[in-house]
Amino acid sequence: MQTPSDIDLLIKQFAKLPGIGPRSARRLVLQLIRQPDRLMHPLMDALARTAKSVKTCGTCGNVDTVEPCHICADLRRDDTLLCVVEDLADLWAIERSNMYRGRYHVLGGTLSALEGRGPEQLNIPKLVQRAKDGVVKEVILATNITLEGQTTAHYVTTQLEGTPLKISRLAQGIPIGGELDYLDDGTLGAAMRARLPFA
Amino acid sequence: MQTPSDIDLLIKQFAKLPGIGPRSARRLVLQLIRQPDRLMHPLMDALARTAKSVKTCGTCGNVDTVEPCHICADLRRDDTLLCVVEDLADLWAIERSNMYRGRYHVLGGTLSALEGRGPEQLNIPKLVQRAKDGVVKEVILATNITLEGQTTAHYVTTQLEGTPLKISRLAQGIPIGGELDYLDDGTLGAAMRARLPFA
Repeated sequence: MQTPSDIDLLIKQFAKLPGIGPRSARRLVLQLIRQPDRLMHPLMDALARTAKSVKTCGTCGNVDTVEPCHICADLRRDDTLLCVVEDLADLWAIERSNMYRGRYHVLGGTLSALEGRGPEQLNIPKLVQRAKDGVVKEVILATNITLEGQTTAHYVTTQLEGTPLKISRLAQGIPIGGELDYLDDGTLGAAMRARLPFA
Repeated sequence: MQTPSDIDLLIKQFAKLPGIGPRSARRLVLQLIRQPDRLMHPLMDALARTAKSVKTCGTCGNVDTVEPCHICADLRRDDTLLCVVEDLADLWAIERSNMYRGRYHVLGGTLSALEGRGPEQLNIPKLVQRAKDGVVKEVILATNITLEGQTTAHYVTTQLEGTPLKISRLAQGIPIGGELDYLDDGTLGAAMRARLPFA
């Protein structure tokens, strides 16, 4: 025998999570077993609460404990701005930046013929409908700066053609704290092309 | 708002586990939320099963779903060998090596005046009692090759003085696959001192 079956199963389950290999899964489980009151039971409770309460917002695709989600329900947010993100993680990241007070639309991925994700799977018809509701003035395409992200953004723009909507994208350039020597050539080139007057 | 409270709580709970920072905790929780059937619920089940079934073996200090543990209950194991380890993780590691078929004694740490761990906290009286039961012939001190581990091993030897028991320790030397150039001087020195005839 190596490790008892229940524990082994728990280790395997942890090892399925992103960034956790069999070794770290073992360390996690050991800690959980050693500290049931501080770690194991609170984690079980938090998982149960989240599993029970989490819903996907029918309007924007955000995940929250209420429906519509906090962001859609917040009256102080700017209804004229609609920010399109690939994923929940991107929405959270933009929220953390505290620089955006409009609404969101979560696609849930990028267009991919290989993985069978077309416009319907990404909620794009719904996005187009929301964008054309007469209130939205600007659609901000905040998909990732990857081939897939940009292809998806481009597809969305084709769907919004002929509308008076302003369509924008995030600025590309040198990240804050970035050292030129360590940047890839693509970023450096894009930043050079997009150079601005020194204010 | 950043992330909804239940989810935030779950992220914080994950971030308490060893080797998981706030960033990876966020990634974990996102995956759990995205794949409730493949990840969230199986993890909850596995945690609940483990939390319910796990017991500490009253004989050796191993953690198992049965009491006495599988190892103590296994009649094919060699009762004359008793391997002393600091921790459950060490027992699992030795079991994975498949090179030992005796019994174990898990101390649950090392002697530490600072952290208030004396011989009683480490189950050392119980270890001495087991070692002197007349069946055990050899006590293998497999504590870590650290100052604390070796101090603890040394303390155990003092407690077993005057008995006819053979007391051994794990061999120290170059690890399998080790390259001399990358090894610390201590290991290299120990391996040199302990050199053996080339067979």
